[in-house]
Amino acid sequence: MKVYSETLSISTKNRVELVDITEKVRRAVASSGVSNGIVNVYSLHTTLGLYLNENEPNLRMDVLEFLDRLAPQGRGYHHDTVDANANTFSHLRAILLSNSLSLPVAGGAPVLGTWQSVFAAEFDGPRSRRVIIQVMGE
Amino acid sequence: MKVYSETLSISTKNRVELVDITEKVRRAVASSGVSNGIVNVYSLHTTLGLYLNENEPNLRMDVLEFLDRLAPQGRGYHHDTVDANANTFSHLRAILLSNSLSLPVAGGAPVLGTWQSVFAAEFDGPRSRRVIIQVMGE
Amino acid sequence: MKVYSETLSISTKNRVELVDITEKVRRAVASSGVSNGIVNVYSLHTTLGLYLNENEPNLRMDVLEFLDRLAPQGRGYHHDTVDANANTFSHLRAILLSNSLSLPVAGGAPVLGTWQSVFAAEFDGPRSRRVIIQVMGE
Repeated sequence: MKVYSETLSISTKNRVELVDITEKVRRAVASSGVSNGIVNVYSLHTTLGLYLNENEPNLRMDVLEFLDRLAPQGRGYHHDTVDANANTFSHLRAILLSNSLSLPVAGGAPVLGTWQSVFAAEFDGPRSRRVIIQVMGE
Repeated sequence: MKVYSETLSISTKNRVELVDITEKVRRAVASSGVSNGIVNVYSLHTTLGLYLNENEPNLRMDVLEFLDRLAPQGRGYHHDTVDANANTFSHLRAILLSNSLSLPVAGGAPVLGTWQSVFAAEFDGPRSRRVIIQVMGE
Repeated sequence: MKVYSETLSISTKNRVELVDITEKVRRAVASSGVSNGIVNVYSLHTTLGLYLNENEPNLRMDVLEFLDRLAPQGRGYHHDTVDANANTFSHLRAILLSNSLSLPVAGGAPVLGTWQSVFAAEFDGPRSRRVIIQVMGE
């Protein structure tokens, strides 16, 4: 049984942005040498969320507009009065998504359905972000 | 330390539907021979979500109506213009729920509180669905 | 490879309340003797959610008000007619958050970014609550 860990660095370019990290997760699992087990993808940030879904350009827009409706920017939030970034919406959106994703590993690769991609969702960029990819198994 | 994996097949009958898979998770954990560890329940789909909560008929209706309010069907979504299923609402609801659930395993069974049931939430059925149940431990 | 498990007891004092359990997660990981691996924090309840975010008093208020907007109390829910606690809103909010959180463990501690705290979110208190902290690794 092995525990392998890698820290992924992501440079985002916009305030709000979806970054497909599927290939990086795949590469980390390959590097781990684990053939059967689990991979945990983990955001080290409170305004960077994670989710697993389809990478289709129209859907990406819908996801962003959806989160924008649920947690709009600058809605008279308390935290906006103490944080110079006025990033309360960023925190709320990250909370709605996931902070970590657990994917099965089989045959040395993360198990993904036909339409599944792993996304890091930036809500307070542009920033340098870190995502830990940890693989456990045999 | 053991890694056990099983693929659960689910046939859903409606466009939107909640399927209680608790017993199937229990059976997979029993089959695994793992007494202490973790079980990861994982959806292989982008329009099938997972969640853990009470299986009470009225509450099941409330959960569906709640998701219907947050992510209504046919709200002029971009993705609906390119996907013949017009299933953007299905993706958005799956994103609000979880793609994977991690439950502790003790005494050869998943640890569940009195009211906790494991649900697969179909948002774009009827379809054949696959859920991976993976158990790691000793 | 080791599997360590601890049950955390929490006494909440209000109907709705955020409890920072970061230090308790840290202590459990230290007690486990695991230096590299994963810690899974797991709610045993259907009206107690978990999330990872910043512990800043204004933001805590925003998080509660945000969930209050998305899943308001007493909105003519079906389940409220059969449950004396009229706690449908509590279930819905718990479903929006997470039932379990998976954090990497490195150097004998949970890996947390500068602003990350682990929260248990009570939505139907005051009650005695149980959260399982399970650590796997070497």
